[in-house]
Amino acid sequence: MDPTRSKHHTTKMAIPTISDDPSYRPGLEGVQACRSSICHVDGQAGKLEYRGIDVKNLAEHSSFEETIYLLLYNHLPVERELNQLNILSQKLRRLPAPVLNPIEGFPAGIHPLIAMQALIALLQGDDYYADDISNPHHNLRRAVSLISKASTMVAAIERHRHGEQALPPVSKYSHAENFLFMLTGEPPHECAIKAMDLLLILHAEHGMNNSTFTARVIGSTNASIYSSISGAVGALSGFLHGGANERVVRMLYSIGDPENVEAFVEERLSIKKKIMGIGHRVYKVKDPRATILQGILPDLIEQCSGEEVKRLYNIALRLEEVVTEKLNKKDLYPNVDFYSGIVMEALGIASDLFTAIFAMSRVAGWCAHWLEQVSANRLFRPKLLYMGDHNRPYIQIKDR
Amino acid sequence: MDPTRSKHHTTKMAIPTISDDPSYRPGLEGVQACRSSICHVDGQAGKLEYRGIDVKNLAEHSSFEETIYLLLYNHLPVERELNQLNILSQKLRRLPAPVLNPIEGFPAGIHPLIAMQALIALLQGDDYYADDISNPHHNLRRAVSLISKASTMVAAIERHRHGEQALPPVSKYSHAENFLFMLTGEPPHECAIKAMDLLLILHAEHGMNNSTFTARVIGSTNASIYSSISGAVGALSGFLHGGANERVVRMLYSIGDPENVEAFVEERLSIKKKIMGIGHRVYKVKDPRATILQGILPDLIEQCSGEEVKRLYNIALRLEEVVTEKLNKKDLYPNVDFYSGIVMEALGIASDLFTAIFAMSRVAGWCAHWLEQVSANRLFRPKLLYMGDHNRPYIQIKDR
Repeated sequence: MDPTRSKHHTTKMAIPTISDDPSYRPGLEGVQACRSSICHVDGQAGKLEYRGIDVKNLAEHSSFEETIYLLLYNHLPVERELNQLNILSQKLRRLPAPVLNPIEGFPAGIHPLIAMQALIALLQGDDYYADDISNPHHNLRRAVSLISKASTMVAAIERHRHGEQALPPVSKYSHAENFLFMLTGEPPHECAIKAMDLLLILHAEHGMNNSTFTARVIGSTNASIYSSISGAVGALSGFLHGGANERVVRMLYSIGDPENVEAFVEERLSIKKKIMGIGHRVYKVKDPRATILQGILPDLIEQCSGEEVKRLYNIALRLEEVVTEKLNKKDLYPNVDFYSGIVMEALGIASDLFTAIFAMSRVAGWCAHWLEQVSANRLFRPKLLYMGDHNRPYIQIKDR
Repeated sequence: MDPTRSKHHTTKMAIPTISDDPSYRPGLEGVQACRSSICHVDGQAGKLEYRGIDVKNLAEHSSFEETIYLLLYNHLPVERELNQLNILSQKLRRLPAPVLNPIEGFPAGIHPLIAMQALIALLQGDDYYADDISNPHHNLRRAVSLISKASTMVAAIERHRHGEQALPPVSKYSHAENFLFMLTGEPPHECAIKAMDLLLILHAEHGMNNSTFTARVIGSTNASIYSSISGAVGALSGFLHGGANERVVRMLYSIGDPENVEAFVEERLSIKKKIMGIGHRVYKVKDPRATILQGILPDLIEQCSGEEVKRLYNIALRLEEVVTEKLNKKDLYPNVDFYSGIVMEALGIASDLFTAIFAMSRVAGWCAHWLEQVSANRLFRPKLLYMGDHNRPYIQIKDR
């Protein structure tokens, strides 16, 4: 079984480039795959808008609940509408037995994101044969259900990993407070609730990216919202997409002290290696979400955590300083992952849970994209550029 | 929560078309998203090649095992290579406890394809932090493992749905024989084994389509083969992609008798409704796989099933006759789903298991595409065409 063996393989792999075949678009770069009115990112100005509203304003004045409403319904809710959403959401938080029971069979070492990919698919219930996929009211209810259950799921997985029973959700709590409560069973600090709410607002949506595209590609087959968003979670599990904040925190711990930062940066630059959490495919300035998260860190650390996270934060500050000085001509600045990991660290959250919390927030944006996709659907079905053989003979095994 | 309400929503949704923005490619139609040398479909000639070899030759001379080898390694194996693959595959058939245990928590009514989407994600084990994703030997082993476990998984799910314990795989049996054995615990008829092997060969690969694209999109983030192919199964669960053979059989039962076919076709045409299993996005002639499956049906029915399936087959023959007569100017001919459902019906397989069996075979092709993707990776990240608002104000809730 030598993969390089090619006795009967005669292909010459001439490699076409974008210039000799305009239909060939590697990575689909520059191709507009769909219309959308959910989110706009201005990478030059460092501006992120959900449904046209600057995320800075949402971070300052809004809540995750209101952000969910805005993303799904395309307008800010009046009080009655927000109450209706909250009542529905609180009612739908609880996991049904077919989703809760399989968790018992998960190994203690399971990665939370993978558990989430599996459990979201299982949320499907009787939806496989649903014939109301074009009914917007039913689809909105599906979206609210999935968003509401996602945090219950993440908390249940985390407790299972520590050999503890899942805690039932508490209706009177907000999304953020309820999640923190379900992790530990302790009423969380006011300051922790605010930080979690902010994390949920800031990660809820970010336009087109691989996982959002995945949700839309799967959804375009008329697969359920559950099958589609399970796939999106799978995409987020790839190291080229999710998981960066986890690695930022690991990097900061490995640096150990603000004094070591300069040497660390010199060494990374000399071997031409990336510095985790620095640079973004779209932002050419500092990621607005990084600025917002950085802004809450001093108070959060003061009130909710100790010296260790404070040192981590100081290493990050020094790293931003050094990187800005050395790399600002290359448009490399901190992105959201640079500070979000420290925020979660300050909340006492295990680092391998970070990406699952990202997913638990992004479910809101994925749902908005799924709804938009099915409301004006077109099956995604690109072509491939075939480079292989034709008319190879079938030779009997004894004659090979 | 009225989704049409838009007090603060001022977007004018002018709808761009492909002609006014060449970057906008709805459904990615005509866009070549990647290079590939796995499969070629000639829709005009009705020809399907795996790695350049006509599937007709594989159907006549080969086995699913050899087809797996060909798809993964790009050449037909010599005897030693085939033996090595079989030994490895037989060793890897058994499901690990972290995958087997959660099945106990699944509801009896779970759709097999959804169970499969969840279980494939769970196969991941310790692969989340794997740092050998660029090692082709390790990746080939992962592919063989997943292909080998897929049928064990489907059989275990089906037995669980009937309240029965999963049966362990039997090493000495071929892939097809082992699967049929694990479903019932009875040694299958020679003729049934041959038919199952043929189904597995013919569904193993079909170039670019939505689920294969999904596997590549997720894989392009460096997500594991398990997360990627779990997503592909999700895509196959959409009614615009998988599930057609299940509906063909339901349609044939509803017609009831060959005498009713002509009236049925007239009625469908008059209300401009599709006839299930007729027509294909790529084939403009009869799908070569339909011809091959039709060829084995008379013997299979004679030896393995009874009058009921024979009537079903006769309805199908008559339907093909009427459709060909009335629709051949529109290039509408039977596709693979038209006959594959009857083959599975003849094997006594429950109709809601059909698409899972399709997936269990297609895992081979998906794995080949995942391997090809990661061996020359480029992250898929298209753009969206933003149609929404900018600079909407954030208005306090009391003022809305």
